[in-house]
Amino acid sequence: MTSTAQHLTTALDGQWAKVRQDVRRQLSRPEFAPHYTPNTLIARTKVNEQLRLLAAEKVAEPGFRTESGGTGDPGAAVTMIEMLAMSDLSLMVKAGVQWGLFGGAIENLGTTRHHEAYIRPLIELELPGCFAMTETGHGSDVQSIETTATYDPTTKEFVIDSPTESATKNYIGGAAETARTAAVFAQLITAGPGEEPTGHGVHCLVVPIRDADGTDLPGVTTSDHGYKGGLPGVDNGRIAFHGVRVPKDNLLNRFADVADDGTYSSSIENPNRRFFTMLGTLVRGRVTVGGAAGAAAQVALTIAVRYGLERRQFHNTDTGEEVVIMDYLSHQRRLLPLVARSYALRFAQNELVTRMADIQSRSDVDATEQRELEGRAAGLKAANTWHASRAIQEAREACGGAGYMAENRLIGLRADTDVFTTFEGDNVVLSQLVAKELLTAYADEVRSRDAIGWIKFAASTVGDEVMKRTAAAPFIQTLLDTRQDNEEEGSLFNRGTQIKMLEDREEYLIYTAAMRLRAADKRLESQFEAFNFVQDHILHVAQAHIERVELEAFVAAIERCEDPPAKEILEDLCDLYALDVIAADRAWFIEHRFISTERAKAVTRGLNERCRTLRPHARILVDGFGVPEAMLDAPMLTDD
Amino acid sequence: MTSTAQHLTTALDGQWAKVRQDVRRQLSRPEFAPHYTPNTLIARTKVNEQLRLLAAEKVAEPGFRTESGGTGDPGAAVTMIEMLAMSDLSLMVKAGVQWGLFGGAIENLGTTRHHEAYIRPLIELELPGCFAMTETGHGSDVQSIETTATYDPTTKEFVIDSPTESATKNYIGGAAETARTAAVFAQLITAGPGEEPTGHGVHCLVVPIRDADGTDLPGVTTSDHGYKGGLPGVDNGRIAFHGVRVPKDNLLNRFADVADDGTYSSSIENPNRRFFTMLGTLVRGRVTVGGAAGAAAQVALTIAVRYGLERRQFHNTDTGEEVVIMDYLSHQRRLLPLVARSYALRFAQNELVTRMADIQSRSDVDATEQRELEGRAAGLKAANTWHASRAIQEAREACGGAGYMAENRLIGLRADTDVFTTFEGDNVVLSQLVAKELLTAYADEVRSRDAIGWIKFAASTVGDEVMKRTAAAPFIQTLLDTRQDNEEEGSLFNRGTQIKMLEDREEYLIYTAAMRLRAADKRLESQFEAFNFVQDHILHVAQAHIERVELEAFVAAIERCEDPPAKEILEDLCDLYALDVIAADRAWFIEHRFISTERAKAVTRGLNERCRTLRPHARILVDGFGVPEAMLDAPMLTDD
Repeated sequence: MTSTAQHLTTALDGQWAKVRQDVRRQLSRPEFAPHYTPNTLIARTKVNEQLRLLAAEKVAEPGFRTESGGTGDPGAAVTMIEMLAMSDLSLMVKAGVQWGLFGGAIENLGTTRHHEAYIRPLIELELPGCFAMTETGHGSDVQSIETTATYDPTTKEFVIDSPTESATKNYIGGAAETARTAAVFAQLITAGPGEEPTGHGVHCLVVPIRDADGTDLPGVTTSDHGYKGGLPGVDNGRIAFHGVRVPKDNLLNRFADVADDGTYSSSIENPNRRFFTMLGTLVRGRVTVGGAAGAAAQVALTIAVRYGLERRQFHNTDTGEEVVIMDYLSHQRRLLPLVARSYALRFAQNELVTRMADIQSRSDVDATEQRELEGRAAGLKAANTWHASRAIQEAREACGGAGYMAENRLIGLRADTDVFTTFEGDNVVLSQLVAKELLTAYADEVRSRDAIGWIKFAASTVGDEVMKRTAAAPFIQTLLDTRQDNEEEGSLFNRGTQIKMLEDREEYLIYTAAMRLRAADKRLESQFEAFNFVQDHILHVAQAHIERVELEAFVAAIERCEDPPAKEILEDLCDLYALDVIAADRAWFIEHRFISTERAKAVTRGLNERCRTLRPHARILVDGFGVPEAMLDAPMLTDD
Repeated sequence: MTSTAQHLTTALDGQWAKVRQDVRRQLSRPEFAPHYTPNTLIARTKVNEQLRLLAAEKVAEPGFRTESGGTGDPGAAVTMIEMLAMSDLSLMVKAGVQWGLFGGAIENLGTTRHHEAYIRPLIELELPGCFAMTETGHGSDVQSIETTATYDPTTKEFVIDSPTESATKNYIGGAAETARTAAVFAQLITAGPGEEPTGHGVHCLVVPIRDADGTDLPGVTTSDHGYKGGLPGVDNGRIAFHGVRVPKDNLLNRFADVADDGTYSSSIENPNRRFFTMLGTLVRGRVTVGGAAGAAAQVALTIAVRYGLERRQFHNTDTGEEVVIMDYLSHQRRLLPLVARSYALRFAQNELVTRMADIQSRSDVDATEQRELEGRAAGLKAANTWHASRAIQEAREACGGAGYMAENRLIGLRADTDVFTTFEGDNVVLSQLVAKELLTAYADEVRSRDAIGWIKFAASTVGDEVMKRTAAAPFIQTLLDTRQDNEEEGSLFNRGTQIKMLEDREEYLIYTAAMRLRAADKRLESQFEAFNFVQDHILHVAQAHIERVELEAFVAAIERCEDPPAKEILEDLCDLYALDVIAADRAWFIEHRFISTERAKAVTRGLNERCRTLRPHARILVDGFGVPEAMLDAPMLTDD
């Protein structure tokens, strides 16, 4: 690897570079060599072995506070799990379920008694768990799940039930075979002395589901989903509960508790706010999923670009030689902008992890900060996972028939990441969450409403809010202040011009979405219809926002880079990213008079120009991702 | 199924409706129930059994001329194979390899002696074959394959060799296990009396590769590709040849022959023209692959739309009820335009099959007709397969976690069709072929040149050519004549306006591509550079052409429809298709002054409006595809 590539790796690795290097070494061991089998028995056995190897090295400790038995480094925790994606996404998901979701629920929703009882055992994999939230009937709309946890004061127990078929817990990773215990989300029902039983909304309880032999406990019925679109190493399954009793202490009671006599209490009075506060503490799952999808895309792009630099097809009639396929403009256009976006997303993801680590290591977090974090995590989860689907697919097609052979890794990466766009929050729903956050301009009480119930809040304050820069704010301001003075005249390769275009787009979209929502609300019958009338506009807001965040992070990363050749490459790559974003939405930019038609044509020319500029650096660009050679074991690659 | 849906099915079924109905009945038998397993042993066994069932019913007879032992109905032949995709794409591919590619090579490149010896046995599956064209080193560029067939006059045999590792036949369906015989494409080398051995380009020979026990014959080495991205029922493998001898008679000698003394003769003198003539006879493979991808997309869209009509998520705050997800604008926007495109592609595919059947049943075909057919087949293969990838993927995501479960069919359809975009001609390469056909304006000798070597011919006659309408020409002219008089003023829902926009786009793109090629050729060092400079423009030409062909076919199908309610739905659906095409490329339309920015915004509004118009007909639209209920056995669907 060249020194320039190493500097690119340094830029991409960010704050937890050491963790990344540790995992790279770990994954280079033969036990973690990429392997492909759709056979679930083989795949599950292999992944469980790998998970045990990792557990033996206590890799999960950083994910938990020192008081709980960990080492308290959440940034390291998500980075470690995310990096596992380079070897096997099934392994990443299993680790994520055990330590991120199951462990995270106990850590963040539980109190000392839970931490003492469960954290060390789950770190060491003595307590294999699962995260039982989604049900057959409700996935995106968690507030409507049907599983009940009814308090029985006579025995001081909760009784867990799946009252309908649609209440069955569904798609739960670990539920089919390995999990002994579940963090179960259920509607909490209790009655204080002399009261009628009342529902207090969704809460989480620790519920044992299997004995040491792996047999379902009484009242618990698990089953196996069998074949899925990918992730053969993950034993997804269903869980149904019928009169399953757990001690009262099993309620994870950080935010709400039930007294022995059945009296319910909570530090958060508003039930919706309580629900979203609980969910908010689980943000790490989304952060990890986004990062892991990004890592998988890097592996695929590395393989495809290296193949594109080896493979030749059709003769150049002038030279008589066969043309290296990466020399075709169409091949550059299909792969290099995706490489650029991978950089942008990684830089943005790094900023997100830093922010998350900062917030999660403080005891005083204000609601606005927390909500911004959740919005960013949702947006980058959607952006990273959609990008991974697209990039890995393009990589596969760019390698033709060879790309379809399992041995060359691409189709496994594609199949395994496919579900990432719809699990841990469906991307369309998450995009709405991002837009809602921007549109409602931080009005606290709005959060608790349905996706479609927030219209009346829209636009009340929009326009007064100053756009918050998410990275390198002073530097970006300088770029803006020193650029030529409008979009039309500044060079398309001028960073200030690019930033201004993405900022203007976002601001305009937010403002007009709010205006349209308000108008539609007056004109149409129901809030649902009003929301629905502008739903495409709302999704556009989210995209515009996240792309601006990505560009800002890219700019900040360039500023930090200290190696001139690496910096120059990053500058060109950032142009490619920005022009790719603008080109994809250039109809909008013209329609809203942000650029002229002539200017729009120049965007496409600029995109081709930057592809040509970067073509000689193609190998260095993917080397920069720092994917260990052991992860690139694709027989179709014959050069080093 | 409603009467309206039946009328839609009639419209979609086209000329070979009876064949479609026969296959629907066939596939509704329990033996053809969709099944999913990534286990190659199980999948291959199952598919081989199904293939034998079909062979026993002589389903392949229509694919061969009566003189050869068939019934001479090529349209029925491709329709039959394509319909198998609704049950299992592995079955479709196996049938396509046996009867379409292997059988097609013998039928179209061979002469009476081959027809007599092989056609009946291959129809009856007594002679399982494979089509050995692609090699490790060369897939798209077939002219550069390295396998040799050297004539030995002393024994009157051809000696087949794989002189290098990259000459190994690769990805060959049937080569791993089942095929006994291969149609092998090889560089033919021979010397007449007193001559030096000379290469005469690529020819095809019948080469036995396995004995009755399935053991590789002497000099033949086959191996198994194992796991792929899908198609577990297809035994793709490699074949290497080392001094394999076959009798001279095994040369498929319709277009060229070798005399006993080694003298080479051919009715086509120009070697390039000979090569492309041979390849041209094999067009049926591409037609079938495009149609099958279209059928798979129809199955996926039917499943996803039906799920979207059942599944509810989030409450409507006004009614208190949970919202059917198909009521969300975003859900309509993600699925309904794909349904519309499926209709458009099916109509265009029907026109193509009719044209192919017409040409292939005549003895006198002029070169222009044949070339147009090949161009159309290439373009619709690319369009259908890209559409299938996109539509099935969108269908999967629209069904969330349920869509990821193998039992609900979507992920199998997605995985199996994935390779369709790159096999039977890589879509990017095929798109160039389409553009080349349009750009070179039918100059015969150009065909024989490399993709990158045709610049000098470009534009020599472009502009003089009148755009040929591909369906319903007089009716379309009437629509154009009676529309308002320019793009800017006519209603976007006016069919004439829509047609004019797509025609103008295509003509302008062809003309400007030719101009740019000519300018680049003067300015740049080499023809390769000149070609490469405008490659993105060239790919745009192909897309514009095929979309125009689709729209024309849609218009013709509406005209033929005799049921007023079905016709009305088709009219709205055609609007949706046209607006979707225009919306996706609206930046181009604005940039080239075909529409104003205000008009462009109206396109997006029109798209949303047509989604709302068609929402109540969503079920009828997918019922119209006529996918047998037995093929829709997805447990997530609970309603009928």
